[in-house]
Amino acid sequence: MLTVLTPHEALSLIKEKIAPLPRMEEVSLGHASGRVLGKDIKATEYVPGFDRSTVDGYALKASDSFGCSEAIPALLMKTAAVAMGESADFTLSEGCCAYVPTGGALPKGADAVAMIEYCEDFGCGEIGLSKAVAPGENIIFKGDDVYPGKLIMKKGRRLQSRDIGSLAAMGVVALNVARRPIVGIISTGDELVAPTEVPKDGQVRDINSPMLEALVQEFGAESRLYGIVRDEEALLAEVLDKALAECDCVLISGGSSVGTKDATGRIIESRGEMLFHGIAMKPGKPTIMGMAKGKPIFGLPGHPGAAWFVSRIFVRCAIEKLMGRESAPITLPAILTESVSANHGRAQYGGVSLFMKDGAWQASPIRSKSGLISSLCAADGFFCIPRDKEGCAAGETVEVTLYSTYQEI
Amino acid sequence: MLTVLTPHEALSLIKEKIAPLPRMEEVSLGHASGRVLGKDIKATEYVPGFDRSTVDGYALKASDSFGCSEAIPALLMKTAAVAMGESADFTLSEGCCAYVPTGGALPKGADAVAMIEYCEDFGCGEIGLSKAVAPGENIIFKGDDVYPGKLIMKKGRRLQSRDIGSLAAMGVVALNVARRPIVGIISTGDELVAPTEVPKDGQVRDINSPMLEALVQEFGAESRLYGIVRDEEALLAEVLDKALAECDCVLISGGSSVGTKDATGRIIESRGEMLFHGIAMKPGKPTIMGMAKGKPIFGLPGHPGAAWFVSRIFVRCAIEKLMGRESAPITLPAILTESVSANHGRAQYGGVSLFMKDGAWQASPIRSKSGLISSLCAADGFFCIPRDKEGCAAGETVEVTLYSTYQEI
Repeated sequence: MLTVLTPHEALSLIKEKIAPLPRMEEVSLGHASGRVLGKDIKATEYVPGFDRSTVDGYALKASDSFGCSEAIPALLMKTAAVAMGESADFTLSEGCCAYVPTGGALPKGADAVAMIEYCEDFGCGEIGLSKAVAPGENIIFKGDDVYPGKLIMKKGRRLQSRDIGSLAAMGVVALNVARRPIVGIISTGDELVAPTEVPKDGQVRDINSPMLEALVQEFGAESRLYGIVRDEEALLAEVLDKALAECDCVLISGGSSVGTKDATGRIIESRGEMLFHGIAMKPGKPTIMGMAKGKPIFGLPGHPGAAWFVSRIFVRCAIEKLMGRESAPITLPAILTESVSANHGRAQYGGVSLFMKDGAWQASPIRSKSGLISSLCAADGFFCIPRDKEGCAAGETVEVTLYSTYQEI
Repeated sequence: MLTVLTPHEALSLIKEKIAPLPRMEEVSLGHASGRVLGKDIKATEYVPGFDRSTVDGYALKASDSFGCSEAIPALLMKTAAVAMGESADFTLSEGCCAYVPTGGALPKGADAVAMIEYCEDFGCGEIGLSKAVAPGENIIFKGDDVYPGKLIMKKGRRLQSRDIGSLAAMGVVALNVARRPIVGIISTGDELVAPTEVPKDGQVRDINSPMLEALVQEFGAESRLYGIVRDEEALLAEVLDKALAECDCVLISGGSSVGTKDATGRIIESRGEMLFHGIAMKPGKPTIMGMAKGKPIFGLPGHPGAAWFVSRIFVRCAIEKLMGRESAPITLPAILTESVSANHGRAQYGGVSLFMKDGAWQASPIRSKSGLISSLCAADGFFCIPRDKEGCAAGETVEVTLYSTYQEI
């Protein structure tokens, strides 16, 4: 029996069935960006490790400043200055102050720093302060940022440069990350020739291999290409078995003929379990998925536009699960500039380009026939018309899933 | 004279003063993802190269189907089937049809394809068609996607996997991309120790070197670390000269003491031109920038949070210009959950975490003292309170610049 799922059901099943790869690897901090954290990171020290000034100024007891003003400055006795990078191993007495640079250590006894802008050096060892400070003002206390045991980052986080900063602050110079899943990519179809070749009449270039390779790398996986396989079940079975032995996940794209789709399905079933045989969505309906040896196998549409699109949703989810990660898109509400009809009984996805008008994002639908690859480039993202809706009217607000946080100018 | 610019003025000046690096490099398609396109890409061929069917079905003359219905099917004579990957070098006569698989070539004389679901094979060489098709239905014509001379992608585009698909479709297997700018990174400050070391009292780890390294790599640049330089003008000048000779752009971070900032400014001025000496923003006010030998030099705040933040806006813009690229963020409107005050006379930026409530994004401000690096990790993006505004009230809609298109679950 053929199981056609909704996109939501397909995603749930992928999340349920795929377990994270068992083995992790250790990388140095310089190689951690873009990788997925394998374990929770808890702090083992204090950051900062000592009370620090956040300004250039004079450390003092705040109470010594109370009531001062421009007219009647508080007078404070200047004591030893604190040098950057050195500890302040003296204690400040009442009525005294000590120069501290931004980031410098606070002497004991001080509980605030007065900004230098409000201090006048009278030249005779005395400082005149014209603005009162509150206890704690202009200070970061030891452990304000991080203290031992504080959960800093959860496993499954895909590390960005700002995370690298936090890790460096805590002296984490090596860490456990998920191994990059190896994704095998197989293209099938008698009409396919390599992108380097000039297609004859009836032939087209294999777009999916290089495109899916780049896509799975965007997800944080490694790719392994198995080339173009002719439309024969025995050949496909042989290549799939090789890919299954060498990879953590396998993508078979193409095979748009019914025969090949059936063949892919039969091969998956003979080696493992079929999870779904079609998704109620457009584009992407002929997508199939199964598991063998605990490894996900996807049969993707042959149309490159459709293959890219379903991979971005479902293969992405599978690869993230293999790395112990789950994420959801931040969608942008935008006003549809034209009506888009839908009456297929399945969720319909469409690309849009975004532009700003009167302070609101407008989503202009990209009209294209199925399989047009160049239209993908014009989109800033996509929106979905649910299966029970006959379309979206111009002026309606739709939720756009973004392809990037930036637009080219 | 010290020139303090608004963030907008600083960006404009960066765009005006920085020219793209002259030399490009050629990469193969498999290495093009993430790179910036060096030249416009115009098509030199047709995609598809022949009229193709978008469904499994029968190619026919549409006029032969007009008026047919389930009750009165149109009868068509079955002729030679078209095989995938082969040309259809025969001409279809009136009243005839030919089987064509999805993606298969259309025989001459045919102007539509009837989906197989609406065709019944009567077994005697005749096909019964129960639904009329319009001319052009279920066909992608030669050149529908791409035709010679069509502008496919503009130079300056940062290539993603979907672009790789379009390039592969056109047989572009090698292309010119902007050279990755080499960005030199220098940390200054007597208080700094390497992240591998355990800081003593008064010392802190050099967070900025590994963090800025990861950040410039996110922008598509290469990094070169010059380590920690003590707070001495002569030493700094020596390292800066070396970096200027070896790199396309130099970042000096730290030097939070007034003396070092002045030193950085003096060194830049003695070697080239100072563009600005401060930005009217918080965080990031002490940011300075100049040019020497046509290369941008940034003096960044010592606080890692501030250094990361201003780099993400201004260094990003500079690196993109070096690659011949300009981009602008897609901002997300979100409802502020708490009031945030501002009264500094400068643009104030604050991190927010996003969550969905009643179908609308809510932006929860992240409270943190200046320089707290761990608070950066908690943010999904940031918003800005303009310099002439005293704050933003709870319930107000703010525009959030996103750090990612996804959120961890």
